[in-house]
Amino acid sequence: MATAQGSGSPLINDKLKANTRPKSHPLGPLTPQEITDAAALTRACWPKDIDYHFKVVTLLEPDKAELIPYLAAERAGEAPGNIDRRAFVVYYFRGTHNLHEAVVNLTTGKVEANVKLGPFTHANGDGDELIAVEKALLAHPAVQAEIAKLQLPQGSVVVSDPWIYGSDGLKDGNFYDDKRILQCFLYMRDPENPTEPDSCHYAFPLPISPVMDPTTMELIRIDILPTGHDEKVKPVAPWHPTSAAEYIPEAQTLRTDLKPLQVVQPEGASFTVENFSELGRLIRWQKWDLKVGFNQREGMVLYDVHYDNRPLFYRLSLSDMSIPYADPRHPFHRKAAFDLGDAGAGIMANNLQLGCDCLGSIYYIGGVLTDTGGKPVNMPNVICVHEQDAGILWKHTNYRTNRAVVVRNRELVLQTILTVSNYEYILSFVFNTAGDLTYEARATGILSTQPLDPELTKSPHPFGTVVHPGVLGGFHQHLFSLRIDPMVAGHGNSIVYDEAVAIPRDPKLNPHGVGYTVRRTEIEASGGFDLDVSKNRTFRVINPTVNNAVNGAAVGYKVMVPPMQTILADADSFHNKRAEFADHSIYVTRYADGELYAGGLYTNQSRGGTGVRSWADRKDSLAGGDPVLWVQFGINHIPRVEDFPVMPAETLRVMLRPVNFFDRNPAIDVPSSKQAVNCSVSLNETGDGAKEAMAGVSLGGEGGQLSSCCASHGSGSA
Amino acid sequence: MATAQGSGSPLINDKLKANTRPKSHPLGPLTPQEITDAAALTRACWPKDIDYHFKVVTLLEPDKAELIPYLAAERAGEAPGNIDRRAFVVYYFRGTHNLHEAVVNLTTGKVEANVKLGPFTHANGDGDELIAVEKALLAHPAVQAEIAKLQLPQGSVVVSDPWIYGSDGLKDGNFYDDKRILQCFLYMRDPENPTEPDSCHYAFPLPISPVMDPTTMELIRIDILPTGHDEKVKPVAPWHPTSAAEYIPEAQTLRTDLKPLQVVQPEGASFTVENFSELGRLIRWQKWDLKVGFNQREGMVLYDVHYDNRPLFYRLSLSDMSIPYADPRHPFHRKAAFDLGDAGAGIMANNLQLGCDCLGSIYYIGGVLTDTGGKPVNMPNVICVHEQDAGILWKHTNYRTNRAVVVRNRELVLQTILTVSNYEYILSFVFNTAGDLTYEARATGILSTQPLDPELTKSPHPFGTVVHPGVLGGFHQHLFSLRIDPMVAGHGNSIVYDEAVAIPRDPKLNPHGVGYTVRRTEIEASGGFDLDVSKNRTFRVINPTVNNAVNGAAVGYKVMVPPMQTILADADSFHNKRAEFADHSIYVTRYADGELYAGGLYTNQSRGGTGVRSWADRKDSLAGGDPVLWVQFGINHIPRVEDFPVMPAETLRVMLRPVNFFDRNPAIDVPSSKQAVNCSVSLNETGDGAKEAMAGVSLGGEGGQLSSCCASHGSGSA
Repeated sequence: MATAQGSGSPLINDKLKANTRPKSHPLGPLTPQEITDAAALTRACWPKDIDYHFKVVTLLEPDKAELIPYLAAERAGEAPGNIDRRAFVVYYFRGTHNLHEAVVNLTTGKVEANVKLGPFTHANGDGDELIAVEKALLAHPAVQAEIAKLQLPQGSVVVSDPWIYGSDGLKDGNFYDDKRILQCFLYMRDPENPTEPDSCHYAFPLPISPVMDPTTMELIRIDILPTGHDEKVKPVAPWHPTSAAEYIPEAQTLRTDLKPLQVVQPEGASFTVENFSELGRLIRWQKWDLKVGFNQREGMVLYDVHYDNRPLFYRLSLSDMSIPYADPRHPFHRKAAFDLGDAGAGIMANNLQLGCDCLGSIYYIGGVLTDTGGKPVNMPNVICVHEQDAGILWKHTNYRTNRAVVVRNRELVLQTILTVSNYEYILSFVFNTAGDLTYEARATGILSTQPLDPELTKSPHPFGTVVHPGVLGGFHQHLFSLRIDPMVAGHGNSIVYDEAVAIPRDPKLNPHGVGYTVRRTEIEASGGFDLDVSKNRTFRVINPTVNNAVNGAAVGYKVMVPPMQTILADADSFHNKRAEFADHSIYVTRYADGELYAGGLYTNQSRGGTGVRSWADRKDSLAGGDPVLWVQFGINHIPRVEDFPVMPAETLRVMLRPVNFFDRNPAIDVPSSKQAVNCSVSLNETGDGAKEAMAGVSLGGEGGQLSSCCASHGSGSA
Repeated sequence: MATAQGSGSPLINDKLKANTRPKSHPLGPLTPQEITDAAALTRACWPKDIDYHFKVVTLLEPDKAELIPYLAAERAGEAPGNIDRRAFVVYYFRGTHNLHEAVVNLTTGKVEANVKLGPFTHANGDGDELIAVEKALLAHPAVQAEIAKLQLPQGSVVVSDPWIYGSDGLKDGNFYDDKRILQCFLYMRDPENPTEPDSCHYAFPLPISPVMDPTTMELIRIDILPTGHDEKVKPVAPWHPTSAAEYIPEAQTLRTDLKPLQVVQPEGASFTVENFSELGRLIRWQKWDLKVGFNQREGMVLYDVHYDNRPLFYRLSLSDMSIPYADPRHPFHRKAAFDLGDAGAGIMANNLQLGCDCLGSIYYIGGVLTDTGGKPVNMPNVICVHEQDAGILWKHTNYRTNRAVVVRNRELVLQTILTVSNYEYILSFVFNTAGDLTYEARATGILSTQPLDPELTKSPHPFGTVVHPGVLGGFHQHLFSLRIDPMVAGHGNSIVYDEAVAIPRDPKLNPHGVGYTVRRTEIEASGGFDLDVSKNRTFRVINPTVNNAVNGAAVGYKVMVPPMQTILADADSFHNKRAEFADHSIYVTRYADGELYAGGLYTNQSRGGTGVRSWADRKDSLAGGDPVLWVQFGINHIPRVEDFPVMPAETLRVMLRPVNFFDRNPAIDVPSSKQAVNCSVSLNETGDGAKEAMAGVSLGGEGGQLSSCCASHGSGSA
């Protein structure tokens, strides 16, 4: 069986196409050689003896005006013109706060720009730093002195979760917002099992928070955390023992009655994978084709998405995310993570494992990113590609003949998972056979916990939920921004929204008060927009120049957005100013090269004014324009005890669905669901109770529908 | 493999338990013998020569006060007291409008009540009637005369979809609302293929609508349909040829590249099925246990739902559904179907087919209902029970050790599908291993189409979408009502809602404007309530007398409801008066025996005042009370061309999720996802491009996480 599946078409395509594809496609992620070259060319701008700390070395995508004709020629089978390959490089002089960004032309070997950035601009953190900072602070005598006051049990192991230092605009003696800073939260492993490296330390938060300069590894100060219901801070006192809460399986009494469920694809997968560049992948599945890229910031990116060779989306990616916390007390008021800009969905991507992160026949896509020395780093299995069954897509039974026709919903899933310290995001693009494209985000992982006075364990807390004795899970919002750069039936799209509105009573037009109609509004200028469930307000991308073949309406795709409570931090707060996307479900801007990240290019300790809210405020006309849609969705996470020690996923979905784009149900040609293919197993071999009970009485409705859904033709009566 | 699965535990349990269970459990659906007895006892109240038309012969469930101690004793393993079995019988004297309802005590053999109902009370339609009415009207000279005016092609076959005659309160010369009436819409099969019994006639709507008395088969009148943009009606003119739109597979050029995807459970299913009565089923799965019933009106009903032997829900069912149309023009203004009360989710349930309606190892539950003669009718395979994989439930990777622990989300699905004339609903209860219970509704099937003047095909229509040349799909709302009778941690629950609200700026409490908290409101009296996304308003069932072991909060389950545009028909309209549930997302009432259906017991041509809005208006105190939750959800269906000739399912979900009910993540003890169990297949045998590209360069992050998610213990580095 494995062999049968192993010979699935993706491999064949890899072999066939790998060498025939252009190696320097303008959308291909940077290759190891290009990363090495980009770093070398950057270094060559400076004296030899400088030590560099590279933060980002990534593909600088071509301007749209240059790329559109290239992609058109490529699709037409014509030789596309050459487009220079460029790298975008962000780096420090190691050990300093001198941040630079450079644009390196890899085709010409020229550095086209190389500038030092201002004092309030900071690059993302990186994994090396996290480890180094933890090591440095735990070795620091002042930190050790505070820890000593806790009188921890013999052999206790203290660990530190570094946390981004959210701006609050303050400048006091100890505050250096012109420098990059990390605030660190201390925890300990289960003191009764301190040698277990995977002990869940979030069950043992400590009230000590060292503030570090990750550049110089200098200790700036030590914050002591409030552990009551108010902002008061008590001197560090001896630690109160509490119980462990482990998530690792060997710490559990595991269920023994969950039987195996396997997905078997005896003929392999239905998709094919080709290289459109050395690292870029072109996936074809059920009339869809799309290019998959991978970068440090956004992780998985989709380009040039078509269905049945008709253009749909020019570029799709998760653009940004903000996680502001509810706790207004120092220093918690600074907890507001931007996991893409502050860390990176690509660099934090999991190495996905066969049979663990998905089922069935799976193709894994790897990436190549950069270490802090400017050397390429392999990121294996960062995206998995597989199919899944999603139940029934459509069914009808003709009650006159009892013939049923049923078609199942097959989906193609591109999944990536990122771990940012305590927390996980499972992010997927899901395609189906009816032309729907869904973006799914699952939030899981471990709460970033804080210590609570043990005697308050059973009292309601104003800013969080007590999830374990002496452990608080703070309220926080997860606010995501999905960037949709559409080309529905070609470029030159418009954004409209429809509302269903009651018609006033009228003796002639609406005598019974039941009538309603649909009102359409076109968005004429960039701005922020909101849902209105009371009006069934639905946003839609249309192509005003292409009419549906059946009813003449402008072809389009609607955006089905789950309603979201917008950011609760007030408009003057830094959380709100920095999360420039978090105040509206929908932002629409006119496309501009380089505007990719809703929160701005540099989110770490950012102060706002550099993201989508600012771009939308240009009030650009969208007439015949080139709109970009920023779709916000999220949850207000009010933790439950059930979310600890690791939380069951909260799932959010945004669906892009065709509206008068096709001339009929696009899945009408999907073969019916058949037992001969699906090989399901009935557990009713002895007949179920109902049939037994009916022995000797009329069989009524039975017969007609029997096995009819499986009949490929005819009335289906078996 | 089939044999291995065939020996799955459900069979064993059927064999073991079928004969040891009490045959007369108070919640067991009526048996064939009981149905026969109930009809006989009813007949015995009247003179011999009367001909009866039975509409409903169903279990009359015991009063809660009587049933609670019974179920408690049963669970405690004590002998429960006997509860009399009763049948609820609704019948006409055949050929008359004399509607009666009777209560028959099957234990004593006595008819406890038998009353004639008022002139404006009407029973549901039934399948026999639909066929008979279609036959009668097509044979009627007046109808034939109107059809003749269409000058249809030689050999054309006209068909009729009978439709419930929604009340409008009018009484004119032709109107007899004191009688039960059907309005019928005429269509024809593809004239070029008229012998195909499964030709999609909805592509050929005709402008003629006979109004019939299904009791006497008398033609009341013939309505001619408006086919323009306004209410004007033109005389019937010769038919304009249009194209066919078939959904049957033999009419399509089918896709050939969708490869088989099979769900294999080599050790069988993880659930067991026992008989709690002759037809009632008790299902146990992953700490859940629940009783499954089936009846004419609601179809699938769940009783006595527990998790880990802790009570959760006393009774769960889809209570009602209303589908009001937007078209205010006569006679479309009467289109407002109540598919449960007007027809029945049970009597219209599909006979589900192996390998078609679900995948994997499936157990089918059958039902027994009643024909119009009062005889039992077998309803085979009306509910299918199976497990499915739903992706990742929780995951965490410790970035210090690179060890990942991942647990997949296994779900148990109980699915039933009903066909009401043109349309299908796929209705499921879905349980998971984290204590979540989800109700899912998928709307599919065929639009109830109406004729449109061909020259208007390309113009926007005020009340619908043109889905095919000369064919209009009218706007309509689908408004569902899920009835939740809770017993979270026991009876005596309360309903509260939580809101997340910003804290005002305050130099001491909220100096940075980022703070927010949660405000809880208890619902003290019955009424209708709405969601408020701007406040993250979340409704929750709590047990104020049971505190969470960790944090002392009242244990509870929250209700995650998708926002819904409430009914658009105005408050004085009959659509609105009849759909007593459709104006609020949430209704809360105090439990009263017999209050099961949100739209009232008799919805056919109802006039309102008999459903949940009326019960809520009692303003019953809920103090220490017994609340029942009515959760409304739905869609405003603005048809797309893509919804024709059969629509891809629109899916809605309501989730019941534990909040501080358990003392930790209840799925923490689910075994990790392992390749050894899941047997997935990698399509990367040659290594994916990324790895090839990396030949000879640093492998960076690779290694640590490799296969770690599969490791059952240890650091997982392989």
